[in-house]
Amino acid sequence: MALSAEQIGSLTALVGAPYARTQAELASLDPGVDPHNFGADLQLRPASTAEVSAILAYCNSQRIGVVPQGGRTGLSGGAASHAGEIAISLERLNRIECFDPVSRTLVAGAGVTLAAVAELAATHRLSPGIDFGARDSATVGGMVSTNAGGIAAFRHGTVRERVLGLEAVLADGAVLSELGQVRKRNEGLAVERLFIGAEGTLGIITRVALALVAEDGPVATALVAVPGMDGAVKLCDALQSAVAFTANAIELMSQSHAAATCRLLGLNEFASLIDSPYLVLIEASAATSQVAEAGLVAALEIAIERGTVSDAIVAQSEAQRRAMWRVRDDWAVYKDRPGGLWYDVSVPVSALPKYLEDFSARFAAHGAGLRVTVIGHLADGNLHLTVDAPAPIPERYEEVAVLITAGLAGAGGSYSAEHGIGLEKKATLARLCSPVKLELMRRVKASLDPHGIMNPGKVIPD
Amino acid sequence: MALSAEQIGSLTALVGAPYARTQAELASLDPGVDPHNFGADLQLRPASTAEVSAILAYCNSQRIGVVPQGGRTGLSGGAASHAGEIAISLERLNRIECFDPVSRTLVAGAGVTLAAVAELAATHRLSPGIDFGARDSATVGGMVSTNAGGIAAFRHGTVRERVLGLEAVLADGAVLSELGQVRKRNEGLAVERLFIGAEGTLGIITRVALALVAEDGPVATALVAVPGMDGAVKLCDALQSAVAFTANAIELMSQSHAAATCRLLGLNEFASLIDSPYLVLIEASAATSQVAEAGLVAALEIAIERGTVSDAIVAQSEAQRRAMWRVRDDWAVYKDRPGGLWYDVSVPVSALPKYLEDFSARFAAHGAGLRVTVIGHLADGNLHLTVDAPAPIPERYEEVAVLITAGLAGAGGSYSAEHGIGLEKKATLARLCSPVKLELMRRVKASLDPHGIMNPGKVIPD
Repeated sequence: MALSAEQIGSLTALVGAPYARTQAELASLDPGVDPHNFGADLQLRPASTAEVSAILAYCNSQRIGVVPQGGRTGLSGGAASHAGEIAISLERLNRIECFDPVSRTLVAGAGVTLAAVAELAATHRLSPGIDFGARDSATVGGMVSTNAGGIAAFRHGTVRERVLGLEAVLADGAVLSELGQVRKRNEGLAVERLFIGAEGTLGIITRVALALVAEDGPVATALVAVPGMDGAVKLCDALQSAVAFTANAIELMSQSHAAATCRLLGLNEFASLIDSPYLVLIEASAATSQVAEAGLVAALEIAIERGTVSDAIVAQSEAQRRAMWRVRDDWAVYKDRPGGLWYDVSVPVSALPKYLEDFSARFAAHGAGLRVTVIGHLADGNLHLTVDAPAPIPERYEEVAVLITAGLAGAGGSYSAEHGIGLEKKATLARLCSPVKLELMRRVKASLDPHGIMNPGKVIPD
Repeated sequence: MALSAEQIGSLTALVGAPYARTQAELASLDPGVDPHNFGADLQLRPASTAEVSAILAYCNSQRIGVVPQGGRTGLSGGAASHAGEIAISLERLNRIECFDPVSRTLVAGAGVTLAAVAELAATHRLSPGIDFGARDSATVGGMVSTNAGGIAAFRHGTVRERVLGLEAVLADGAVLSELGQVRKRNEGLAVERLFIGAEGTLGIITRVALALVAEDGPVATALVAVPGMDGAVKLCDALQSAVAFTANAIELMSQSHAAATCRLLGLNEFASLIDSPYLVLIEASAATSQVAEAGLVAALEIAIERGTVSDAIVAQSEAQRRAMWRVRDDWAVYKDRPGGLWYDVSVPVSALPKYLEDFSARFAAHGAGLRVTVIGHLADGNLHLTVDAPAPIPERYEEVAVLITAGLAGAGGSYSAEHGIGLEKKATLARLCSPVKLELMRRVKASLDPHGIMNPGKVIPD
């Protein structure tokens, strides 16, 4: 049911007319990654925790559904909104408070982008310890709500491991402010940490205290061809065990991704690599880039001798380094695949070869004219699988998910790695979540949001 | 009310008579750190998750309080047990399962000691990334339940940041088994993580999946004299920013601790240092011990030039290195202080000088013939303050806590760093916990343990 004019008026008054947008106004704006992000009747852009609190108290009393939104870069529909709901953008909570380079912490508003955090930290040779492609638009609130992962999670953990404390507004408007900025803080049940990865279903995160890490040293970068997953896993282990350098990134691409991307972008310089079944992008750091490069070259020579790597190119310039990252990051190749289905799984690294082999066999047996492309973060076993066909196949998501998720739990992996559940993986969660966990999730949800106003219909199966 | 003979009989039958101990039998055994650990009517030592489940289901139906116990090395009374309750020791859940050196993970039973985890990990040059004095007796279940910290938390986080997944038995006997062994796993609300740091008030942890880190390289160790806390903080920052080595440990001692310990242990080799207000123990690692030592010596020379360090001894043998650690770790000096009160706070590193200055002023103004000793983990701002007097002063815990905790929350610190709340800090929590957090803690507790059988009276104020 649509919001009444009175409701729209009352809510608009809480933030001021310049910071409220009606459905008609939203329709002309870019909704972000998910076309349904701007389906709400009203979008509000509060300026403070107090305004967020007033909005939620009102919505709770009126039983109005609330969809919190960060950078709208989520890939699982967690920010999709619908008629009768309001969307709350946290973009005006965009201040970084309390940057403390000695304690290596900062407190950021939910609307601060990852890039802004990284930029400020870098002024003191520090880093948030988190990095991923959407760094310029993804916000702290969204990152914490989805427990984002990315390239560096194998070293520094996911966002969950970077969060020291947070402030959140509960469904009834109460403010839970637990902004301690220390590593060691055990003050009873850590209820505030329930909001990490809750995708906005329990309340709205307004501020976050983050632990920073030392910035990486100068880097050397290589793009290497590996003949198979067994070799890729051995290479990954060797890179992490190296003492001459720190491996900052160990990224995996299947031939289907790398070859198509290189062709599309005209990156002929990597032509000698792209016939290999898998490519790995390696970034290594050390006290100087010379040391990093010497160490990386030595490690690759050993890998070639062992047969885990068949060929390698070490970047000879910043331009070549960027080109290597474009092979990994560029999405252009997926833009002509409107029917693509995206999956995002985790597999213990040692189990990757068998998982991919078994999956390929299931996939081939299933037939049906589908093709699969793999990219991933090798060192934490996080694979992004894109399955597509010439024609759109959105209704086949769960059919393919059954093939992709088979055996994952038994191997210690996960059907949901870093993109969140949102709407996309709800059916998969309903199928694979244990009844005990599901029951606890429902009890916690009912306990914190008894009227179910927070991000309705997301994450938790009906 | 004491357990009935029938209840004792039924419970004993669930584990077998050899694994049940009556109060009379317990009375002759070592209760561990807290003299009240063995106050229960009955101790059970189940062999499996299934036995734990059967015990809890029975206790839930009979409304019998259950106190889970690990290594009984806790310092806050979290394992104290009383008449009418049963204690459950997890010591027989002592198997390490699924050690996967390539994925850098393992799954351990709750009763496995930290030392056993470290020993197995070291066979593949890996480490749990957690270390503290009680490593030989503290167990995985206890460490996770108290979210233990220790020496390495400034680098690898507390135990919370090392936990990939866990299995816990709920108050009603249901088994929540979320043992994923991957870094990235976002499968809806992370309810299983509520058990981390819950000190046994929500259920019993039976198995844990841990992320391992690379073992540190060979070390160099130094004991240094610092003239004041400003210098100590600058030294700490410089050590963490060094590129020639990794700082593994940066431990702080007040003169009152170091001098007394050196005298008691006859460690005259450090006599030149112990007149300084503070000593810092530094351990640095690198690819070789020579590189570590050269880097550490260079860093200390700069620190002496800047005046942040007044004198330093670099360990010239393994024996001298051990002697330095004895100055930090030995408890002998506290054994003649039966009236000692222990506090365990966190302060952002940059705020340490002002905190200690303000606290000293409050403490002096308060008078009352008390003296204070400080040891701590400098790099995460975690201080252990011992306050004592010639006569026992246990009834003055909260009186002194008021002096110690003043200003901590405002500085982003914590009144409860790494020892847990247990019984000891319940009054402090009741005084300092926000009403919103307290209400959420109570809702979560009531939701997971409606009859209040789990570790009754601990953590959550009545």
